Amino acid sequence: MARAIRRPHGERRRERGGAKVPQLPYRSLRNPFPPMGFIDEDALERIHQASLRILAEIGINFLLPEAREILRAAGAEVDPGSPRVRFDPGLIEERIRTAPSSFTLHARNPERSLPIGGSWINFSVVASTPNVSDLDRGRRSGNFEDFCNLLRLGQSLNIAHTTAGYPVEPIDIPPDVRHLEAVAASARLTDRTLYGYSLGHRRILDVIEMTRIVRGISHEQLLGEPSLNTVVNANSPLQYDKPMLWGMIEMARHGQVVIVTPFTLAGAMAPVTLAGALAQQNAEALAGIAFIQIVNPGAPVMYGGFTSNVDMKTGAPAFGTPEYAKAVLVGGQLARRYAIPYRSSNVNASNCPDAQATWESMMSIWACVLAHTNLVKHALGWLEGGLCTSYEKLILDAEMLQHMAAFLEPLEVDDATLGLDAIRDVGPGGHFFGTAHTLERYETAFYRPMLSDWRNFETWSEDGAKDATTRANRIWKQLLADYEQPPLDPAIDEELTAFVARRTAEGGAPAE
Amino acid sequence: MARAIRRPHGERRRERGGAKVPQLPYRSLRNPFPPMGFIDEDALERIHQASLRILAEIGINFLLPEAREILRAAGAEVDPGSPRVRFDPGLIEERIRTAPSSFTLHARNPERSLPIGGSWINFSVVASTPNVSDLDRGRRSGNFEDFCNLLRLGQSLNIAHTTAGYPVEPIDIPPDVRHLEAVAASARLTDRTLYGYSLGHRRILDVIEMTRIVRGISHEQLLGEPSLNTVVNANSPLQYDKPMLWGMIEMARHGQVVIVTPFTLAGAMAPVTLAGALAQQNAEALAGIAFIQIVNPGAPVMYGGFTSNVDMKTGAPAFGTPEYAKAVLVGGQLARRYAIPYRSSNVNASNCPDAQATWESMMSIWACVLAHTNLVKHALGWLEGGLCTSYEKLILDAEMLQHMAAFLEPLEVDDATLGLDAIRDVGPGGHFFGTAHTLERYETAFYRPMLSDWRNFETWSEDGAKDATTRANRIWKQLLADYEQPPLDPAIDEELTAFVARRTAEGGAPAE
Repeated sequence: MARAIRRPHGERRRERGGAKVPQLPYRSLRNPFPPMGFIDEDALERIHQASLRILAEIGINFLLPEAREILRAAGAEVDPGSPRVRFDPGLIEERIRTAPSSFTLHARNPERSLPIGGSWINFSVVASTPNVSDLDRGRRSGNFEDFCNLLRLGQSLNIAHTTAGYPVEPIDIPPDVRHLEAVAASARLTDRTLYGYSLGHRRILDVIEMTRIVRGISHEQLLGEPSLNTVVNANSPLQYDKPMLWGMIEMARHGQVVIVTPFTLAGAMAPVTLAGALAQQNAEALAGIAFIQIVNPGAPVMYGGFTSNVDMKTGAPAFGTPEYAKAVLVGGQLARRYAIPYRSSNVNASNCPDAQATWESMMSIWACVLAHTNLVKHALGWLEGGLCTSYEKLILDAEMLQHMAAFLEPLEVDDATLGLDAIRDVGPGGHFFGTAHTLERYETAFYRPMLSDWRNFETWSEDGAKDATTRANRIWKQLLADYEQPPLDPAIDEELTAFVARRTAEGGAPAE
Repeated sequence: MARAIRRPHGERRRERGGAKVPQLPYRSLRNPFPPMGFIDEDALERIHQASLRILAEIGINFLLPEAREILRAAGAEVDPGSPRVRFDPGLIEERIRTAPSSFTLHARNPERSLPIGGSWINFSVVASTPNVSDLDRGRRSGNFEDFCNLLRLGQSLNIAHTTAGYPVEPIDIPPDVRHLEAVAASARLTDRTLYGYSLGHRRILDVIEMTRIVRGISHEQLLGEPSLNTVVNANSPLQYDKPMLWGMIEMARHGQVVIVTPFTLAGAMAPVTLAGALAQQNAEALAGIAFIQIVNPGAPVMYGGFTSNVDMKTGAPAFGTPEYAKAVLVGGQLARRYAIPYRSSNVNASNCPDAQATWESMMSIWACVLAHTNLVKHALGWLEGGLCTSYEKLILDAEMLQHMAAFLEPLEVDDATLGLDAIRDVGPGGHFFGTAHTLERYETAFYRPMLSDWRNFETWSEDGAKDATTRANRIWKQLLADYEQPPLDPAIDEELTAFVARRTAEGGAPAE
């Protein structure tokens, strides 16, 4: 299909960011419509109050003694000899107030920095999957070669604003140095924002330093310029573990972005009722956000929602369900209540990049967009409830996200677009193909897809009757063939190499 | 998958309308959220004013002399010796005011009557396709056997509120008697509302009489109880042909429902600009609605929107595009402006029931629901831009529509659903699988899909690694095997048989 697209101007080719696959240009997106709420203000208040009661009466386990000491000093109720911490509602409400309502997440290429907050929407590539698959080679464990290729695809797709986390786990890189190799590869193969996993004290400090090197700025400048992001999932229900707490502490101290995301599957790690799961999500999120603000008031954070449900027959997690869409919308309402930027995800539970993967993703994407999600994680490539990255799904998602981006473009209604003269000239029973009004606009009038096939059945059949997933296979190969590595300042490249070499020689960072 | 669902009670089996395929129960749906607008009031007013100017300055061709005479008598400007009719804006605004803002479309089974208007949403099976396909037999011309099977599936699927038009054209039935055979089959194989094509004077009168017979009511009662619906497409741009005008006249005279639906493909039969296409759609719709109200003030009508765009490379129509979604939303705004019930459609342009068919449908379905569409035509089974009905797509759509139905269920937020006691009992690090709070609710807590497969990759692979389309194939076969014909009063059945026999003996109704 790609070759059928007329690309008359070399100029436009470069602008569009890929030589042969037609794409929308890279741009920051915002939702011009009011956010959609799912519950009324009273119900929202009841969830808020329930989560405050959870924090006051039940409390949260903070497994790191240093974290409990910080909380005790700030006025939280810490049980001696127990990990349990309880919070007075006033303490939570006061502390979360210092979280900024918007900020810029800086990339090494300033044109790829992300506006976070308000009605901005950013899409990031799938992260943290243990497996990877494509139509040719099937499903296999994550590895560094696929990891790099997925970074290249994220860089090549204009609709992917960034990669936030390993697009597949590079299991063949030893764990102690994996963060060094993976972040160095991200910094070289993409010019987008960087991500670090909160897997302990030493590792997150390494990644913070690598981020500073890649951005070519001082330690002082980094403190004021969020340039790295991490997701912290609570160990739901009601628990934060040591490696994640170290991540929260060091990221906050360095002014970097923590996306606090309880993973609250209703019926498993949270109540079977969506209201209860959301109250628990909110309690965990507020505790994490308050903790970060106590560590460093004003540190950039995001409110992450990841409430879905399990299949009650099997206990298997389900994604992109009606319940998930509702939870995404209510999560957005809660985040707006606290004026904190919101993160949710494009998810599905299908085992292959098929119609189910697509409808579950569309349930997710529409909910994310209507909810004013500021960062849609896993927006491209996620399969199997997060257990696999699919090359073909990456392209299917790119197409769906481009559809949404085009949908969010406002509609111009003025004399020229109302076109009364054209309607008059054509008259009853005529057609508009050859009119001046059409010819002046036909190249740009409509969204042009990268993957949709609109040819008639006969032409499509003669060309092999390829379904969308099969065509997606061809597109990612074309994108990889056309990939161009973004230039990196040689001095920065050298400093990065030296840092990785030194830290590798020191043994990397063992698990804590 | 179906057999894995526990169905403990025979009671529930019958309620759910299918013995083995799990489904949501049949129910009327409404959208509890405010409708989404896409343009502001000023822009909406500009489209409205542009369409009034089109009607006043350019006019519409009414090809039937009897229709022009009706319009002339009502005060429209009719050119002698020309089909062109122009309307004073005041005449349009005055006449459309008598259209009812809501009504009931009666079915022979009162429980399957449709509430039309307000925030009610009704889904109807695909109609008017020339071809039909399934995974086993491939693509073939429409025929009576498939026509009947598709009616059976529409009857079996609870999410299909009705069938509105032939679910595939039964080409093997001679045209002069096709309306007799097709409507008789609809009346027997389903207990839902009936549909007649506006293909001339005699044919629509036949179908009106058959509707009266099937409902078992008098002519007088029929006049006050809308029981039959028809779609009238303008021959865009700006033209109504004779058979359609006869349909409008007779349906209006009999108090039956006309769904006035211009088919305005931007760039082909309408301006390449969406604003212009919508202005033209609105002009054609208002002219049709005003005409019907002139024929019989208060006759039930719907405002139909069917504006999409063509692929400007090939001229092929495209559906489920970002432009289509915008047009659906603006169409809803226009219909609400006039307080007339709204019809739009679930469409796609894919050549097979694949991911493209699914994402294009999801673009359509979300737009339809957000727009407060009262009748979503082609909601189940449409493929290839309306050139083919797909058995598998019918099931994919049923699943997507069920997702939307479950999504529209409000979220209960009260002490019981907030579940603080359960959260307290489970505590940090526990799980909710075995708690009383979970056990009391787990059977009904979440939406249960008919088609989604949420098993893990290994189990799914061992079971044949079937994608959603392959699983859909099994489901429609199961539904057909389980189909039960709804009982019909034997006296009505006899009267229907006699009517069809008599009209067939008379030669049916040749094309006019």
